[in-house]
Amino acid sequence: MTMRLHWSPRSPFVRKVMVAAHELGLADRIRTTRTVVAMTKPALDLLPENPLGKIPTLVLEDGTVLYDSTVICEYLDSLSGAPRLVPASGPARWAELRRHALANGLLDLLILWRNERDKAQPLPALLDAFALKTRHALAALEAEIDAIAAGPPGLAQVTIGVLGEYLDFRFGDLDWRKGHPRLAAWCADFSRRPSMRATAIVDA
Amino acid sequence: MTMRLHWSPRSPFVRKVMVAAHELGLADRIRTTRTVVAMTKPALDLLPENPLGKIPTLVLEDGTVLYDSTVICEYLDSLSGAPRLVPASGPARWAELRRHALANGLLDLLILWRNERDKAQPLPALLDAFALKTRHALAALEAEIDAIAAGPPGLAQVTIGVLGEYLDFRFGDLDWRKGHPRLAAWCADFSRRPSMRATAIVDA
Repeated sequence: MTMRLHWSPRSPFVRKVMVAAHELGLADRIRTTRTVVAMTKPALDLLPENPLGKIPTLVLEDGTVLYDSTVICEYLDSLSGAPRLVPASGPARWAELRRHALANGLLDLLILWRNERDKAQPLPALLDAFALKTRHALAALEAEIDAIAAGPPGLAQVTIGVLGEYLDFRFGDLDWRKGHPRLAAWCADFSRRPSMRATAIVDA
Repeated sequence: MTMRLHWSPRSPFVRKVMVAAHELGLADRIRTTRTVVAMTKPALDLLPENPLGKIPTLVLEDGTVLYDSTVICEYLDSLSGAPRLVPASGPARWAELRRHALANGLLDLLILWRNERDKAQPLPALLDAFALKTRHALAALEAEIDAIAAGPPGLAQVTIGVLGEYLDFRFGDLDWRKGHPRLAAWCADFSRRPSMRATAIVDA
């Protein structure tokens, strides 16, 4: 059974899904459709399948539509029989989901930060708040990365790996590795995984 | 075991968690701490527990911290033995999570729309995109509400109920009920539930 994914080469949330698919051995079942969206430029052809106009959006063979990226990842995880990205229950499940929410929430923030800073008149208080939260989130990931790395590559690791390369791609000026040596070292290792290489950001 | 929730009276995501807690009979185990956040005004005392500075953030008795609102709702659901807010597996699970993502994603959009429209120089293209996506999302909910209403009050129903009252509270000018009679009727019914009355928006 093949699935169709509304995809773009630079969306970190699309990449999260594709890295997850590669980790689960499901990438060859996903047919990608290039759908480029921007906060100010909705993709009109996407709205019938996802009224929020966001990617990734997955369409199953029977027409069932799934979003957002986290729901898609959990769905893909369910296809592999025993879940591998998110533990089925217990404290390990809540730790995985909370760590994912930290990395994923930082990605959400970075998208908004990028939109704001690119405006003719960005709001200084908003830029300051984004910078403050990013500092705290990176410090939290630095403090927790050893514990996260001790487990198998789950949804949190996938999202942190995508986050690291997204920071390089869109926020090089942040020099995020400075002050976060353990996170930087872990991201460098994770970036060597086939799932990350197969989904490398294409700036075109 | 009591839990501590970073709470505010007007956050729709906090309300989603509180409505879920009432529906699950767990509200009396949650101690709320008033934590007011705004995109331009991070709550500094919240950052150690949630580096992203978002509410709701739940702190368990053993110090375990959980966020975001969806993770907290799923955690609360797990305390009731058999899950009642989100089916454990199968097509019903993916439908519930996708419908929740629709209503929850619209809430995310409305928060951003409100921040943008309140600026001295809002970006017209951004306001237009928010309006377009909101129209499509409300039309999708109108088309699907009968199917959603056929099931028990799960995470999607809770979030749609909160969404309806949030639209009244912050976007009265949208007159959202116009053109969405089934959604409006369902929301009116859902608003009568004890869980919704116990968590009514306090504008103070």
